[in-house]
Amino acid sequence: MKEIFKRPSIREFTSQKVEKEKIEKILRAAMQAPSGGNQQPWEFLIIDDPEIIAKLPTISRPAAPSGRAPLDIIMLANSERIKHEGLWTHDLGACCENVLLEATHLGLGSVWMSIEPNEERIEKCREMFNLPENIKPFAIIAIGYPNETKEPVNRYDETRIHYNKF
Amino acid sequence: MKEIFKRPSIREFTSQKVEKEKIEKILRAAMQAPSGGNQQPWEFLIIDDPEIIAKLPTISRPAAPSGRAPLDIIMLANSERIKHEGLWTHDLGACCENVLLEATHLGLGSVWMSIEPNEERIEKCREMFNLPENIKPFAIIAIGYPNETKEPVNRYDETRIHYNKF
Repeated sequence: MKEIFKRPSIREFTSQKVEKEKIEKILRAAMQAPSGGNQQPWEFLIIDDPEIIAKLPTISRPAAPSGRAPLDIIMLANSERIKHEGLWTHDLGACCENVLLEATHLGLGSVWMSIEPNEERIEKCREMFNLPENIKPFAIIAIGYPNETKEPVNRYDETRIHYNKF
Repeated sequence: MKEIFKRPSIREFTSQKVEKEKIEKILRAAMQAPSGGNQQPWEFLIIDDPEIIAKLPTISRPAAPSGRAPLDIIMLANSERIKHEGLWTHDLGACCENVLLEATHLGLGSVWMSIEPNEERIEKCREMFNLPENIKPFAIIAIGYPNETKEPVNRYDETRIHYNKF
């Protein structure tokens, strides 16, 4: 599937806004992710206000690209929706991948920057948005039209594959 | 992206084998997943031996479909490759999603059954394959030609979306 193979992490963006229709498609893709017992624990905080975008890089050093993107999605989980506590990070991982792939499909660049399980990043995000106790910040995804070109990298490594026994 | 929207969990399979070329494409897709600091913690145990397939459902009750599939991939992480301990479950979540999407792209059905963080499932998997200490079982993905049809489900829920503030 070409989106899987051509998707690089994009950390430089043009100032072009991401169209509302594309944001909705990305969110639709996100919510189609599989989840443990179909618990769908996700919530999405869509940031397109330049004043807030400018503050996002204070969450962590690797979050710097969030401040350069016209759009950031803060990927959250709602603990009230979590039936299988140990699976929510798996669910959000799959959900983030859908966001990156759908963004790629729509001609956008993106990069995934983790928050969870770093306590300092979680606290900074929680304070910045005054998140209630039941909302768990997972990651930031910066999205926009790419202002850098990157060749796809082939990560295939046969040594990771084992047949019928380890 | 149509694979994201049309992918159902498939738990009934025909006896048709999955072609070697398709298995390789699925593994290539898996290894293109993003990972924390590009740590690529994954390893893959490919099970196509019917005698071993017959034993997989003993790992857990929800793992039953693994015994009905012509192919199972046990998704593993290698702790020696993990640089960011807290991120490996996020990475494997994205990696599993790539497996499901590429399988869908190739006309295959699939279902993701968790192992991690259930201690009993982890131990059973570890014993079954005599896994070394550094290898962490994450999930089983059953793959094959579908022997059931399922309509795509629309999981879009506007109440999960928040703009610029929670």
